[in-house]
Amino acid sequence: MKLALSLALATVSLVASSLVQQAKEAGLSPIPTSKTALKKLVDNPKNKMTDAKIELGKKLYFDPRLSKSGIISCNTCHNLGEGGDDGVSASIGHKWAANPHHLNAPTVYNAVFFDLQFWDGRAVDLEAQAQGPIQATPEMSATKEHVVKVVTSMPAYVSAFKKAYNKDVNITFEKVADTIGVFERTLVTPSAYDDFLNGKPKAMTKAQQAGLKTFIDKGCASCHNGIALGGNMNAFNVNGTYEFQNVGDFKGDANGMVKVSSLRNITQTAPYFHNGQYQNLKDAIKEMGRIQLGVTLTEEETSSIETFLGALEGRKPKITIPMLPASTSTTPQPDMN
Amino acid sequence: MKLALSLALATVSLVASSLVQQAKEAGLSPIPTSKTALKKLVDNPKNKMTDAKIELGKKLYFDPRLSKSGIISCNTCHNLGEGGDDGVSASIGHKWAANPHHLNAPTVYNAVFFDLQFWDGRAVDLEAQAQGPIQATPEMSATKEHVVKVVTSMPAYVSAFKKAYNKDVNITFEKVADTIGVFERTLVTPSAYDDFLNGKPKAMTKAQQAGLKTFIDKGCASCHNGIALGGNMNAFNVNGTYEFQNVGDFKGDANGMVKVSSLRNITQTAPYFHNGQYQNLKDAIKEMGRIQLGVTLTEEETSSIETFLGALEGRKPKITIPMLPASTSTTPQPDMN
Repeated sequence: MKLALSLALATVSLVASSLVQQAKEAGLSPIPTSKTALKKLVDNPKNKMTDAKIELGKKLYFDPRLSKSGIISCNTCHNLGEGGDDGVSASIGHKWAANPHHLNAPTVYNAVFFDLQFWDGRAVDLEAQAQGPIQATPEMSATKEHVVKVVTSMPAYVSAFKKAYNKDVNITFEKVADTIGVFERTLVTPSAYDDFLNGKPKAMTKAQQAGLKTFIDKGCASCHNGIALGGNMNAFNVNGTYEFQNVGDFKGDANGMVKVSSLRNITQTAPYFHNGQYQNLKDAIKEMGRIQLGVTLTEEETSSIETFLGALEGRKPKITIPMLPASTSTTPQPDMN
Repeated sequence: MKLALSLALATVSLVASSLVQQAKEAGLSPIPTSKTALKKLVDNPKNKMTDAKIELGKKLYFDPRLSKSGIISCNTCHNLGEGGDDGVSASIGHKWAANPHHLNAPTVYNAVFFDLQFWDGRAVDLEAQAQGPIQATPEMSATKEHVVKVVTSMPAYVSAFKKAYNKDVNITFEKVADTIGVFERTLVTPSAYDDFLNGKPKAMTKAQQAGLKTFIDKGCASCHNGIALGGNMNAFNVNGTYEFQNVGDFKGDANGMVKVSSLRNITQTAPYFHNGQYQNLKDAIKEMGRIQLGVTLTEEETSSIETFLGALEGRKPKITIPMLPASTSTTPQPDMN
């Protein structure tokens, strides 16, 4: 019995380790287990992460007063309790405006691992990204001046900036966005999949392991790779053309490329695609097979891939709701128009 | 030196204890220090608080999918990071509608201590209150059926209801509201003022103590009393008439009465009054003196009262953002119209 069990376990390990090898060759990488390695990986060399910056960035991320109306924060569309997004196909912003290009808010969790930010990849990092939605008219609709006025109107924010940077800190809009970016860099969610790739063969079920193999064998990892299983700019399909159904007017970047969605926590971030076209994950998987890989995935293959994707549900960091400083007489008034 | 110090301390204690006595006579009561006493005070005899109910109620409080649009939660207007309200004079709801009566969202913190809920006191408790905004067209705009469908579409919610109540629980709209109410009962914020009334003479500064005395002497406590320093239905002013400036069409309940605002965390919950008329706390204090008490408060008296109100800034409970279950194929789709 003991020998049989040992042999069985050895077989499990062998199969698993060959799958890990295959995953690595397909360009898949886990979130590192070591905190030091992770910190190094997610840190911003131009604006080193510190506890003071993270704490301040978290407050700013949750503060709706950065918006023109005073009621929309980063967390409104990138809701950390809802998989890091908003669950609607096109995000709703200032004055109940839907995203004019019918673009879906991507999750902020693990966005630090993306090569580029925004669906057309126009921002190089989270700090650059954070400047966008705050100013966009159909999103938070604020001016840079508004944001600086809000933040500098509250002594607690001014002190927090001094603590995070230095006593002579120049509080600019860019620094607000930089600080939000630093907080977002902490939003990393290691999962069973990472444990598996990091050497724990039993972390994923056999069905999930089989799903990972299907995922790689079918070619999904040719776009969904790296730590994010996505986040890179890639040709739309095998022919390099845009084959998505028309929902909105978005047609990718100048080269007709769109950012590949991360698959981490994908079970928690419906609807799918940059246009929020599919509610159902299986439908999305099949459509990807069809328009990106030029294959018809069977029901069994689709289910197998979906099972694997469940292993990407990550362990979210515990986030305590930050208590925001009270407005003062110089804080800009909410403007609903 | 030692004797002088002892005498000085004794004097402090004497002055303080006479002020505590005066406060009690004026109908002011602290939040009890004992956890058991507090639990007893805030519990709902018809729906006993348990950890399972609180945890579930917290999720529901933060879940925007209870709303028709899928993007407005209880926390949108009663933001726990922002003093428990939204900082705008008239709350904004579904389709960017402002409250049609120009009513200001009151803080949810310590609302358990109110005699009645809503500005016209039409709800007897937090559980009854929670049913209102979820259904109100200009707020979350959901039907009872929508809410039940949302909650029952997610197995994790169904399990949580079974755990909180019993395995045969009938998940109704009312039970959703009841559970949110249970969570809200935990949102209590003891402050320096409570410590002072509970026997710590140094918990409030001398200036805050002087402010409390001014507050009582001027008659503020005739309406702002009890644990909430408000939360009761009271005549609008000394003549029993509505003297508020017209902002919106709200004119109180059938008897022309309006609920007295709680003064707890008042420094964090601008704008003030049920109509959000004043941004500045001093202006609000002066106006209350004029229209409610028929007195003109001097600049010094106003400042003194404001200083006291600072002692009502409470210690907020630490709230970790709840991770909401993922939508399923039967979860109602967001409807922005």
